[in-house]
Amino acid sequence: MKITRSDIESMQNRFRATFINSISGYKSLNLVGTRSMSGISNLAPFNSIVHIGSNPPYLGMIARPQTEEHQTLKNIKETGYYTLNQVHEEILKQAHQSSAKYDANTSEFTEVGLTEQASEVSKSPYVKESLLKMTLKLVEIIPIPLNGTSLVIGEIQEIFIGDCMIEEDGYVHIEELGSIASLGLDGYLKANHLTRYPYATLKDSD
Amino acid sequence: MKITRSDIESMQNRFRATFINSISGYKSLNLVGTRSMSGISNLAPFNSIVHIGSNPPYLGMIARPQTEEHQTLKNIKETGYYTLNQVHEEILKQAHQSSAKYDANTSEFTEVGLTEQASEVSKSPYVKESLLKMTLKLVEIIPIPLNGTSLVIGEIQEIFIGDCMIEEDGYVHIEELGSIASLGLDGYLKANHLTRYPYATLKDSD
Repeated sequence: MKITRSDIESMQNRFRATFINSISGYKSLNLVGTRSMSGISNLAPFNSIVHIGSNPPYLGMIARPQTEEHQTLKNIKETGYYTLNQVHEEILKQAHQSSAKYDANTSEFTEVGLTEQASEVSKSPYVKESLLKMTLKLVEIIPIPLNGTSLVIGEIQEIFIGDCMIEEDGYVHIEELGSIASLGLDGYLKANHLTRYPYATLKDSD
Repeated sequence: MKITRSDIESMQNRFRATFINSISGYKSLNLVGTRSMSGISNLAPFNSIVHIGSNPPYLGMIARPQTEEHQTLKNIKETGYYTLNQVHEEILKQAHQSSAKYDANTSEFTEVGLTEQASEVSKSPYVKESLLKMTLKLVEIIPIPLNGTSLVIGEIQEIFIGDCMIEEDGYVHIEELGSIASLGLDGYLKANHLTRYPYATLKDSD
């Protein structure tokens, strides 16, 4: 099936958003935890985490334009910290629900039924139920003027990992934590380990 | 298990790279197809595709610093086009092998045993065997001075999708194509559909 540029243009807006979000493939699903200057905790799902570098350990994520409903970016700018809390099967429903447009004075933790866990390295709350979580210190926000989004880059300060195999070379079997892959705007998948391949060298191709 | 900032710093370099790449979670796996000005085709795996926007349809990816071995960024800059070719189970081994550091005068297509497919919208080659592929037109390269990487943003020009369910609202079941999720630098997972949830509203939380 071939879809041309003009096919894409003639798609209805909501259809196009779902379609384009699907074809870019699986993403990891994380809840971003922040706290406002007035102390209110905030939780929002992000599926746009990218690896920027490992030394120093930088992760990036794409943030939508800041609005009243999107408190995450505002809180990150003001406090300089945020947490990433990976979503596993048992907290998927609550994670999805945290995307609802709650009032800025309302904590999504209370509304969706997840538990705040204090961190020693920042005031940004962890999701206690998450089995893989980390605190990031904001390093840079790079604007993407094309459409008003931005690339938020943070440096990892602390990590908590639940019970899963970590191989001798550092590979973490996050699928053993029940970590969910997301697809499109609202699709969720379970991932099963297939294989790892050794570092590809020219000889291997013979 | 708690891992502190100084634990991360004291990790051996290769261990840290594998570890940090794992904990950011599942990524989609795509082969980026380009062609040099002198006509040589190039193929390289990228697991850093992010959704930037759907109208216009923008996808981003993080590119490592340009070197002799990394021809992709050079080719994109010079020709203004590239293809994304999603990797499914049957071409996984070839896809992984394309990460080897072949000479700039060598086509990874020939070396790993994948087939070039011409496009009508650009000179960048598709991977014929891929079941979900698209051509992107370079829109912007945003430098990330922190570590010399960059965010490459392209606009989708054309899409080919194999035989899979596309729901009425535009959701594409890419797992039916056998699309692979990647983890870390060399781990591959099979994904199975779990569920989709309706758009979260405030009422749903009651």
